[in-house]
Amino acid sequence: MNAVTQNRRHYEDLAVGEVVDLGRTTVTRDMIITFAREFDPFPFHLDEAAAKASLLGGLAASGWQTAALTLRMLGDTFLKTIASMGGLGFSDLKWKKPVMVGDTISGTATISELRRSRSHPERGILTLDFDIRNQRGEPVMTMRLANLVEVRQPETGSVPTPEVPFDVTHAGTA
Amino acid sequence: MNAVTQNRRHYEDLAVGEVVDLGRTTVTRDMIITFAREFDPFPFHLDEAAAKASLLGGLAASGWQTAALTLRMLGDTFLKTIASMGGLGFSDLKWKKPVMVGDTISGTATISELRRSRSHPERGILTLDFDIRNQRGEPVMTMRLANLVEVRQPETGSVPTPEVPFDVTHAGTA
Repeated sequence: MNAVTQNRRHYEDLAVGEVVDLGRTTVTRDMIITFAREFDPFPFHLDEAAAKASLLGGLAASGWQTAALTLRMLGDTFLKTIASMGGLGFSDLKWKKPVMVGDTISGTATISELRRSRSHPERGILTLDFDIRNQRGEPVMTMRLANLVEVRQPETGSVPTPEVPFDVTHAGTA
Repeated sequence: MNAVTQNRRHYEDLAVGEVVDLGRTTVTRDMIITFAREFDPFPFHLDEAAAKASLLGGLAASGWQTAALTLRMLGDTFLKTIASMGGLGFSDLKWKKPVMVGDTISGTATISELRRSRSHPERGILTLDFDIRNQRGEPVMTMRLANLVEVRQPETGSVPTPEVPFDVTHAGTA
């Protein structure tokens, strides 16, 4: 527990099944091109004609931008309200459909698992499953994120030792 | 095959076990803060004092920035040289250690799997395993990426049908 996070929700305050509404973000041409120039400078993320000729069928955001925008939505709607200690990693990220110029993405993050760290009693590990969709309700991305959250009372309760999908022992932030 | 990609390496030109040297990128304070402001505005990515008090121990890049910078390195060193049709998704991304101000990341991407799409004979699916390290050789991130690559001669060769880790049938870009 520390001064910054003491009034935020801790591990003990979270429950499997809780659904976070991530809000929505509209993806503009400028956003797509700016991100692509820095991180993913492929013609189908930069040029309308090249994009039309590609599998994407038109100018579309880098899938990594969709992921980064989702992270931002998660931060604004959820991570800032809990005693987050940082991310561990993620798994099973799938891009289902391209996010095109003018699309509005929205979605949910559902708490699918909560467990205590074996090696650090003050750390809880929170797993979130994401379902991101466009304005027509079509899935555009799914992923599973593992994030650390402070345990309010580390001395209390048992620390179960299930199979550990993320190598918490060696992770720099765990 | 198309005019843009015809002189690039295709599915048939790639081999499991090939190792791509991703080059190197130095992460500056400005880069960390600019990225964090847009996508991951947490105190430990924005403020030196808050970062020192956190698990990170100092100002560190968002893990998602490490991923995006890795994508950029992959694009510059490899994806631009092959007939890439876009990404499908990734799995098992793990942040092993924080990337701090001034750190230089480098690493490799190894082709760990090559297979043909069942539903689209002109598409191959390339799996890359990443090993990203800092200037001390310490692992900072690992991940596995699935990417589409054009088959030069779709009419040739068998299309095996192994277990499909990514839902290629329904993916927007597959």
